[in-house]
Amino acid sequence: MKHDLRRDAREIFNAGLKAADPNQAVNRSVKVDAQGVLTVNDRAYELEHYNRILVVGAGKASAPMAAALEDLLGSQITEGTITTKYGHGLPLRVITLTEAGHPVPDKKGYAGTEHILKLLERADEHTLVFCLISGGGSALMPLPVSGLTLEDKQKTTQALLECGATIHEINTIRKHISAVKGGKLAKAAYPGTLVTLILSDVIGDDLDVIASGPTVPDRSTYADCMEIINKYDLVDKVPPVVSTYIERGCSGIESETPKPGDPIFDKTQAVIIGSAGLSMSAAKSKADTLGYNALILSSFIEGETRDVAGVHTAIIKEILKSGNPVNKPACIISGGETTVTIHGSGLGGRNMEFVLAAAIEINGLDDILVLSGGTDGTDGPTDAAGAYAEGSTVKRALEQGLSAREYLRNNDSYHFFEALGDLVKTGPTMTNVMDLRILLVV
Amino acid sequence: MKHDLRRDAREIFNAGLKAADPNQAVNRSVKVDAQGVLTVNDRAYELEHYNRILVVGAGKASAPMAAALEDLLGSQITEGTITTKYGHGLPLRVITLTEAGHPVPDKKGYAGTEHILKLLERADEHTLVFCLISGGGSALMPLPVSGLTLEDKQKTTQALLECGATIHEINTIRKHISAVKGGKLAKAAYPGTLVTLILSDVIGDDLDVIASGPTVPDRSTYADCMEIINKYDLVDKVPPVVSTYIERGCSGIESETPKPGDPIFDKTQAVIIGSAGLSMSAAKSKADTLGYNALILSSFIEGETRDVAGVHTAIIKEILKSGNPVNKPACIISGGETTVTIHGSGLGGRNMEFVLAAAIEINGLDDILVLSGGTDGTDGPTDAAGAYAEGSTVKRALEQGLSAREYLRNNDSYHFFEALGDLVKTGPTMTNVMDLRILLVV
Repeated sequence: MKHDLRRDAREIFNAGLKAADPNQAVNRSVKVDAQGVLTVNDRAYELEHYNRILVVGAGKASAPMAAALEDLLGSQITEGTITTKYGHGLPLRVITLTEAGHPVPDKKGYAGTEHILKLLERADEHTLVFCLISGGGSALMPLPVSGLTLEDKQKTTQALLECGATIHEINTIRKHISAVKGGKLAKAAYPGTLVTLILSDVIGDDLDVIASGPTVPDRSTYADCMEIINKYDLVDKVPPVVSTYIERGCSGIESETPKPGDPIFDKTQAVIIGSAGLSMSAAKSKADTLGYNALILSSFIEGETRDVAGVHTAIIKEILKSGNPVNKPACIISGGETTVTIHGSGLGGRNMEFVLAAAIEINGLDDILVLSGGTDGTDGPTDAAGAYAEGSTVKRALEQGLSAREYLRNNDSYHFFEALGDLVKTGPTMTNVMDLRILLVV
Repeated sequence: MKHDLRRDAREIFNAGLKAADPNQAVNRSVKVDAQGVLTVNDRAYELEHYNRILVVGAGKASAPMAAALEDLLGSQITEGTITTKYGHGLPLRVITLTEAGHPVPDKKGYAGTEHILKLLERADEHTLVFCLISGGGSALMPLPVSGLTLEDKQKTTQALLECGATIHEINTIRKHISAVKGGKLAKAAYPGTLVTLILSDVIGDDLDVIASGPTVPDRSTYADCMEIINKYDLVDKVPPVVSTYIERGCSGIESETPKPGDPIFDKTQAVIIGSAGLSMSAAKSKADTLGYNALILSSFIEGETRDVAGVHTAIIKEILKSGNPVNKPACIISGGETTVTIHGSGLGGRNMEFVLAAAIEINGLDDILVLSGGTDGTDGPTDAAGAYAEGSTVKRALEQGLSAREYLRNNDSYHFFEALGDLVKTGPTMTNVMDLRILLVV
């Protein structure tokens, strides 16, 4: 079979994008049959049992997720309120939409979260609540516990970042001083039934990490918070009202975040409807269909982009040499998010930088293609999702007077691939399950 | 099946080492039957056709390779001369052994190479020549073409390194000003029959790269050399005798390195008897036997150790999460050689640093083991080949008051694993096919 590598890679990448599309993701997981039975994955809900269906949530993809739910449930939705990032809204019919600040939280986000909690006050045994969570959900629900201000919360986060606390430690404190995180949104929805639909943009898809886990149990305690504050000597660095609040928590005056085994979680279901893993699986299915021996490497890929690219091209070279880890025609798929240490002043993103570094490594090799693209459609501050490279890329560039090494040194991957016409452009996708990398060897 | 991960990993690693053992490698590839037919892989040589069997070669493993050949052919070997690094010699019966400078060449290496060429002068139609090549072979055969001195050659290499020439460019010039590289040793052995046995310590096992390809065709030309000299403006930086020599070559006065298609190569066979790939295959066979789903990732692994370790542990995490790229019980095998950017003042090597970085990434995960070791038995300037790590390693270290992150920051992986008793020690192995990494997930 003769392969058109660019077309194949793009089809495989698009299959991954499609699996992460909020509308597709909602419709894949949530079904309603003619008998009024709603199923979410394999759990069934008799709609006639519920007087009210509420929709809440936050995240950069919450608007298209809400729109999909409106299409599915129509007027059966009683009321709803969701928050998304400025510019990420869509017209909705029933559900109220708030646009707010991200990544820096603002008063709009604060108000939106208040609105969510107010709506949930009305939840009773006959209420079905959908919570729609996607990337950015944490910053877009910035409501602290009563008595603390947004500024107190921000100063606390700042102090934690400056002292070198781990992300796990930061989240432990965040969950305890938030009104919704660490399972508190689930508590607010109780005794209603709560279905959380999650588009994961974090490595590993840990439910208590995505948006700081508003609807899932929290294992951390006030005592853990105090330990962190003591460990980094933060007593004088966080606002007094925050340390006092945590002390009160340690003394049992403030209630703990809901823990695993708490009965409120008997009435909750949390489902990852879109993720790097689901997109990689969809990409693999497409690659299988196109006749490739497809291998999913990992969705946990992190690290310096050039070195990560080096390991990926090392696999390409091994396929050419020995047919390991898979025989040709081979498709290697990986996900996750790398980092770029900036040395130059060019324009680019981690995906294009990955492809540029790979292009140098595969220079002169035939019948190979490397594609890397951000599933949000935006790589760095550019209008491209990523780029393609082949064994001929470096030479084609030289013929135009462009040195791949120079462009890489200057972190100028965008202009390199723009000149070659090798950018991958998708436009904004309204979703994000991190990056997808597709390597083809035929 | 209950797996003893340490025992399994060590057995798999040892299978890789055994495949690279010079004695085993020679005996796997070279057989002599009772009828006096010698076969090298699947090519047969009637010994009665030959009046003389000569053995030449150079490299850090040339002594045990020569000893294996003496065991196999005994008194049928007429004469021989090989060069190895100081301290790497072994008692031999027929073959003369020279110990010489490596990595900085010296007069002993120069004299050893002269001796090789002198021996080959006697080769005729009825001579069978074995050439034994292993890592270090280039520095250990430092004989320039007639008219140039060792110093001229060294100054030329220095100028090339300083100007930023690629390794391919450096080798192009090296081959042309050497008396043995770039196929010239094959030319010297002509019209004898030449069998080259190669233990490869370079990524990709390119025959014209290993020891600068003394017995294989060279595609590069004097014109390429001149282009490199002009490209980097080296005319005044290399010794005048060198640029004059290359000019004479360009004018057809000096003879070219033998090219592909040259009839001298009709009488040559070059066989890789040990390599990263062969050791990985042996390791995979052992892992299969032990019940693992074994996957060879790549023998081409290069790059910054910590980032490379991150990609390896990303694969471990994916196996745990989704059973990709292989289901448990899984064994991932990789080879090649990473680099360490030194920030600290500790003691370590790239293998132990890899394992330390991996230990941090897999902290808290169960039923995982990571082993990385140098096949030469020496990781960095230490007496260990590498180390083991499990999900409990970081915690066990903390219980002893050792911070994995601190030891990594200080590049002090040796002392970290020494304190834990988790070093992998093999003693010197007299071989080198780079590093082997074994990841187990059960």
